Amino acid sequence: MAVGLTPPRRLAPVAGIRLASAPAGIRYQGRDDLVLMEIAPGAATAAVFTRNAFAAAPVSVGRTHLANSSPRYLLINSGNANAGTGEAGLRDALACCQAVARACGCAQAEVLPFSTGVIGAPLAVARITAALPGLARDLCEDGWLAVAQAIMTTDTVPKGISHSIDLEGGRVWITGVAKGAGMIRPDMATMLAFVASDIRMPQSLLEAALRDAVAGSFNAITVDGDTSTNDACVVMATGRSGVAIEREDEPGYTVFRLGLSEAMGHLAQSIVRDGEGATKFITVQLRGVPTEREARQVAYTVAHSPLVKTAFFASDPNWGRILAAVGRSEVAGLDATRVDIHLDDLPVVQGGAAAPGYTEAAGCRVMSSPEIRLVIDLKLGHCGAEIWTTDLSHDYVRINAEYRS
Amino acid sequence: MAVGLTPPRRLAPVAGIRLASAPAGIRYQGRDDLVLMEIAPGAATAAVFTRNAFAAAPVSVGRTHLANSSPRYLLINSGNANAGTGEAGLRDALACCQAVARACGCAQAEVLPFSTGVIGAPLAVARITAALPGLARDLCEDGWLAVAQAIMTTDTVPKGISHSIDLEGGRVWITGVAKGAGMIRPDMATMLAFVASDIRMPQSLLEAALRDAVAGSFNAITVDGDTSTNDACVVMATGRSGVAIEREDEPGYTVFRLGLSEAMGHLAQSIVRDGEGATKFITVQLRGVPTEREARQVAYTVAHSPLVKTAFFASDPNWGRILAAVGRSEVAGLDATRVDIHLDDLPVVQGGAAAPGYTEAAGCRVMSSPEIRLVIDLKLGHCGAEIWTTDLSHDYVRINAEYRS
Repeated sequence: MAVGLTPPRRLAPVAGIRLASAPAGIRYQGRDDLVLMEIAPGAATAAVFTRNAFAAAPVSVGRTHLANSSPRYLLINSGNANAGTGEAGLRDALACCQAVARACGCAQAEVLPFSTGVIGAPLAVARITAALPGLARDLCEDGWLAVAQAIMTTDTVPKGISHSIDLEGGRVWITGVAKGAGMIRPDMATMLAFVASDIRMPQSLLEAALRDAVAGSFNAITVDGDTSTNDACVVMATGRSGVAIEREDEPGYTVFRLGLSEAMGHLAQSIVRDGEGATKFITVQLRGVPTEREARQVAYTVAHSPLVKTAFFASDPNWGRILAAVGRSEVAGLDATRVDIHLDDLPVVQGGAAAPGYTEAAGCRVMSSPEIRLVIDLKLGHCGAEIWTTDLSHDYVRINAEYRS
Repeated sequence: MAVGLTPPRRLAPVAGIRLASAPAGIRYQGRDDLVLMEIAPGAATAAVFTRNAFAAAPVSVGRTHLANSSPRYLLINSGNANAGTGEAGLRDALACCQAVARACGCAQAEVLPFSTGVIGAPLAVARITAALPGLARDLCEDGWLAVAQAIMTTDTVPKGISHSIDLEGGRVWITGVAKGAGMIRPDMATMLAFVASDIRMPQSLLEAALRDAVAGSFNAITVDGDTSTNDACVVMATGRSGVAIEREDEPGYTVFRLGLSEAMGHLAQSIVRDGEGATKFITVQLRGVPTEREARQVAYTVAHSPLVKTAFFASDPNWGRILAAVGRSEVAGLDATRVDIHLDDLPVVQGGAAAPGYTEAAGCRVMSSPEIRLVIDLKLGHCGAEIWTTDLSHDYVRINAEYRS
């Protein structure tokens, strides 16, 4: 069902990162659902977490641990989000970290826990701890593909990317995996991403690169603040390539930052392409908006409109629904008689009404493609925004009505 | 498909209002799609219109006409919204008003036009004007039921209400009709309501009563500003009962205001109950919120969440999705460990986690009812809000993917 998305064929190892996955039977049968990731000593690790007020237990524990020590291990389970589980959930997350510490010989605070799956069910801690000694034994550098599979929930395709960047000091690798498919609004325990590089970088610089890369990737598929209880994106820099960047004003920093953004952009797009029930991959581009904030506001109003999304599903160039969504997005000074809309390069709306020469047949041709660019120009200013979204299909309803049954 | 909604059996005439409907062939075949409503001279008429920046042509014309004269005729068509039609749409709306003026012998500015249906298609002005002489001839006081049917688009059940109120000066009648069914978000050319009474009331007092009634009815099913291109609600007071209210501090004003609110609440609920693809009627009640604005914000975030709506469709008491929606609704100071959730009277969440003694079986029992009350208490303050919404079903997608085909 995923739109233009194939599984990664090979994910390059990153020196200084060892991984293992195993079937712990947390919720799924006959597949891996538990991942242990080891980070070499001396690596820098940065992370961003959900801004949802109901942050899941592992997010609370992870935030605290990250603030107080350098992580050595990530523990990731699918099938259960350990969210909405109150005090017991926090105890369970800590117990898992403690079990990793015992199995691997590190401090409890050096473990970051991640969970994704059903909200409100108690975590099967005993099954997780029972699987840990085996995971610790199996750690190796080649496990990225298996990890991409083990962290899937309603995903239909594993998501990963590997590429190398040539810097002045030599070649560095970036490899990342992600999971997530609930994408009309990412308000389920949805999105996890783990990206590693063998570059050496100070913690603060890695954090800046992460913030920058998230803005143009995962935050281009999610409304600010519209995050789930468990969303997290982690970037690790092990330094094992011997290539180092120390300061923001080195030319290599910009090259690495763009490489990281490219990798994270690919992972974010993969999540949208595998959106639940998606049959279309839609790029919404706003232009001519007074501020970037308003441009994103209009883009999300359009992208979240069930009527616009069902029109895309039906390959129906129903531009009236797009205009109506723009019209209620509360941009100051919006002038209906100036708005232009293009579908790909086809002029559809000009000055708030059907463009001269526009035909329904031409609109249908564009809409029948699985990849569509919707360009909306408000002619009010000089800012813009680009976000990625999907259509709303029968399968979205089916998947989300059946998710727990 | 409508949830607990039966067609009105009888709608009482309102002295001073005459109506007629006819099949003009605007879009539908074999049914009435055009309505003329005559308001007796000396009546007061108040209206609220959509706040969408892309207000349709009839809304622009109607606003201007209402500001400049006392309306004598309403012209309402279904099948075509005359929205997104630019200058030509304005000319078409004015041409229709002019045709009414000719057929009925009034000024053009004494006609208010209303259109509902597909956006972006030119209005069949010739068919409308051709039908007008017949409509003018057929005007009578008994046409309310036929009008309720003629204004339907994707509605499956006509919507209307009649009741009488006994005031000190005697009995007055309130009769109203409404149309609208696109209700996940009312961002289509969706909602029209026409309510009349034979009470006598000054214009300014009628406007106040309308504002008050709208707040607890049509604005309890629509986000502020989240209105469609064509939404309109009109209230007419003909004065023909001989019962008059002059000032806000008369006891009769409160009684009438409540009676008007009750009628409009019924019409608004009818629209939700006939929501596209609806299988459930859901009342979302927020309590313990610092401000009413925030209470409505949380209520709408929950009510618009596709994941919450699909869970209701599946009769799945997936309270984790409800918590996640509350968590991203950006209420300052939200404390996850204090939130309580009830489904009807069943405690489901207490202090942010499953309530003691709560069982999935008990939750499923409540969720399998066609009418469900969802009560969310944030324990943060003393304000609340109540809104009405529906689930998100396979049929919603089907209806909106096929609407123009």
